[in-house]
Amino acid sequence: MSVYDDLLAFQRETEALAQIAGRLGWDQETMMPRGAAAQRGEEMGAIEGVLHSRRVDPRIGGWLGAINGDTLDDVARANIRHISRSYERNSKVPADLAAEIARVTSVAQGVWAEARENEDFISFAPTLESVVALRQQEAQALANGGDMYDALLNDYEPGMTGARLGAMFDALRPRLVALRERVLGSGRGPAALNHDFDEAGQMAISAQLATTFGYDLDRGRIDKAVHPFSSGSGQDVRITTRTSPRDPFNCFYSTIHEVGHACYEQGINDAYLLTPLGAGVSMGVHESQSRIYENQMGRSRAFSGYLFGKMQDQFGDFGIGNPDQFYATVNRVQPGYIRTEADEIHYNLHVLMRFDLERALISGDLAVRDLPDAWNSRFLADFGVAVDRPSNGCLQDVHWSVGLFGYFPTYTLGNVYAGCLNKAMRAAVPDLDAGLAVGDTTAATAWLRDNLQTHGGLYEPREVVARACGFEPNEEPLLDYLDEKFGAIYGV
Amino acid sequence: MSVYDDLLAFQRETEALAQIAGRLGWDQETMMPRGAAAQRGEEMGAIEGVLHSRRVDPRIGGWLGAINGDTLDDVARANIRHISRSYERNSKVPADLAAEIARVTSVAQGVWAEARENEDFISFAPTLESVVALRQQEAQALANGGDMYDALLNDYEPGMTGARLGAMFDALRPRLVALRERVLGSGRGPAALNHDFDEAGQMAISAQLATTFGYDLDRGRIDKAVHPFSSGSGQDVRITTRTSPRDPFNCFYSTIHEVGHACYEQGINDAYLLTPLGAGVSMGVHESQSRIYENQMGRSRAFSGYLFGKMQDQFGDFGIGNPDQFYATVNRVQPGYIRTEADEIHYNLHVLMRFDLERALISGDLAVRDLPDAWNSRFLADFGVAVDRPSNGCLQDVHWSVGLFGYFPTYTLGNVYAGCLNKAMRAAVPDLDAGLAVGDTTAATAWLRDNLQTHGGLYEPREVVARACGFEPNEEPLLDYLDEKFGAIYGV
Repeated sequence: MSVYDDLLAFQRETEALAQIAGRLGWDQETMMPRGAAAQRGEEMGAIEGVLHSRRVDPRIGGWLGAINGDTLDDVARANIRHISRSYERNSKVPADLAAEIARVTSVAQGVWAEARENEDFISFAPTLESVVALRQQEAQALANGGDMYDALLNDYEPGMTGARLGAMFDALRPRLVALRERVLGSGRGPAALNHDFDEAGQMAISAQLATTFGYDLDRGRIDKAVHPFSSGSGQDVRITTRTSPRDPFNCFYSTIHEVGHACYEQGINDAYLLTPLGAGVSMGVHESQSRIYENQMGRSRAFSGYLFGKMQDQFGDFGIGNPDQFYATVNRVQPGYIRTEADEIHYNLHVLMRFDLERALISGDLAVRDLPDAWNSRFLADFGVAVDRPSNGCLQDVHWSVGLFGYFPTYTLGNVYAGCLNKAMRAAVPDLDAGLAVGDTTAATAWLRDNLQTHGGLYEPREVVARACGFEPNEEPLLDYLDEKFGAIYGV
Repeated sequence: MSVYDDLLAFQRETEALAQIAGRLGWDQETMMPRGAAAQRGEEMGAIEGVLHSRRVDPRIGGWLGAINGDTLDDVARANIRHISRSYERNSKVPADLAAEIARVTSVAQGVWAEARENEDFISFAPTLESVVALRQQEAQALANGGDMYDALLNDYEPGMTGARLGAMFDALRPRLVALRERVLGSGRGPAALNHDFDEAGQMAISAQLATTFGYDLDRGRIDKAVHPFSSGSGQDVRITTRTSPRDPFNCFYSTIHEVGHACYEQGINDAYLLTPLGAGVSMGVHESQSRIYENQMGRSRAFSGYLFGKMQDQFGDFGIGNPDQFYATVNRVQPGYIRTEADEIHYNLHVLMRFDLERALISGDLAVRDLPDAWNSRFLADFGVAVDRPSNGCLQDVHWSVGLFGYFPTYTLGNVYAGCLNKAMRAAVPDLDAGLAVGDTTAATAWLRDNLQTHGGLYEPREVVARACGFEPNEEPLLDYLDEKFGAIYGV
């Protein structure tokens, strides 16, 4: 095993350095003085350079070639699978192309932000064209003649294909559109919140919610940031949240969402610390955890009743009369422009749209200059509303400006996986709602930890979900859950 | 200049990575979840490994050999001087010795902490013997037949020798001892504080003091930590402070001290960012800045009058009647056991003692097992008090456990430099006290920035102080300052 040990020791240092780079990103969003941006850019470039050269270090190829796979156990085989994949992926991309992508995307984010501010897509178009062209080049280098979009998708969801996602999303779309039409045509409109909620009170409830959902603050911490996120693996998994005076749900459900991500990382077998198995296995599986914590648990009738009481204790009467009305308010359906503010039904319609559009951009079927029209006509078809301005349309998300193509669909894949896991979990833990109603999530979170989170990168993404569920993941459980939940709330 | 450019580009990445490693240390003391220690150890080991291999990278030797020094300007020559020194120093120490020192000192700190807790020097002695033996080996590798202590000292104070420090300290000691005897025999005893000071109030004044002394919060931040420190260079220089309910001076003067360190880093010419010139040039010069901010300015009659008013505004009457009494309280002289709690006179006696003892440990003239007796008899001679227990004696400081030999004397060297700079600054800025009395330090801090801080690593440590002062640094100005100040307060 000595060659394998050498490889793992080298990889362990790389994983440790990757944790440092990740924490530098956390620091940038939470702690960094605002005048330190230029220096921080050089620091990030330096550590990313170290990581890249380690990931393509020719010694890895030598070690991999010298290891006899027959002598390895399951854990070692999985480690080798991850290391090989990373080594091959990074070695395929010429260094000058990787550097050019890093350079252009770092500038592009600023161009995008200014274009969005100015409602001016045209000023962003040439930059986006460069980003698309560079990612196309990278995809060609990675795909070896195969599908270019799949090559990009595999960075976020190993083993998944655009065709498979496309089939799944084609099955989702008509039922989601039909459900939203039934809901919006129901004539029912739950009350929105109309009250001010002090920041300290929001943060106090937020911290309680994190603990309620099993987040271990001995191995994590909660800070505020402009955009909520989760960061890190192993013993140091940090989350951020934010507050908005009129919208405490933004704070509470951002926290529960990020706690889902963080609990996945914290739930991984300790033995995998700083190895390729010691982190969430894919974006889709990660999102399944954030979503099942946020939606299937956090927005359930049972848990929202508990939250209603918490909010009354903290804020007094805030204008919602009873737990059933509160449940409807938490799950209010509205056809808004913005993905990140969308309800559980519209959210997936947002993602499906982006998936089709970005596949067409990468394949070349859609030109960047035609993106606004394509976006706006698709939005009108799926949401029944005309986009009024670019910041409410194709300029709303940062993703494409920083080169993230193949990332969007993992959001809905995560919802699909969450639907499957929720079905299996509720079968395995029949009294789950009784716990949620009193703020006790332990039965649910323990089931998720023992059946999914603990495995880290041991199995392939789809496989780990299938093993936890006992059936092949598919879109039906999510659709059934949405139909039942929103059918009941809206009486349709 | 192309070879020089290649060398500097490589060095720039190393400096950026060193900033990351430093910030990881900051994070560990301020933000890290307590359960993350083991993982953090591996992360620190990984980034230190990257830094070490870059510092001994054979390409540096090639670049240095290929550069024609005659064509370089002053800045380039200074950069080459720093890079050569680092390359030679790190290349002289065998990799296995460096690794063994890292391993033993990382364990030794824990052994020391437990021994101090248990008042048990004997349990620490074998560990300290190992640390001393390893540092002796390292010193031999570095010294090339020269003085071993000087080889270690040069890590902290390039160009300085033990003999030169010894002569300076031998001149200091009798006058310091005589002054403390006059002061303690004066029959005067300024009142101590005897009041509770709320933490929020201490932190509010602390933040105001930082700004008052010119700390730029756009390129820094203040957090709380168990031990106050300053961290980072360039655009991201962070400080920490602490609060103690009965002792707000601990908070305020820790803050001013760390602000002195931080302003040195922030005051360096922007053009030196992430180059070898872009950081404070030595520990002694660094300490001169922290001390002149803390003592010659912060503990002056003029500034203490301003602070008295601030504290009355914040805390109301706290039992000190007027600014003169307050000034005496701020500068209260007491022969305590603990270096970090010492007044301006006793502090240097603490350091002189440690300097003599550690030189004897490194030369082999003093055996580790004889350290407590040597410490206690010297303490009795210089302080007139018998040490009552090891935690008040030779177990009080962490330094030796982590292998820091040659570091202690830079504290008093810093005081000596501060004495020189204070003399020169007061000659150049005659109305300095008028500003300090109303909380305006700009004339003083601008003089220090323009005459010393801005140069970063451009000149050698002693040279940069001499250039600022207009005379060769020596101990007389510090002694004159102490005699005059404490003579006036105590009427002796």
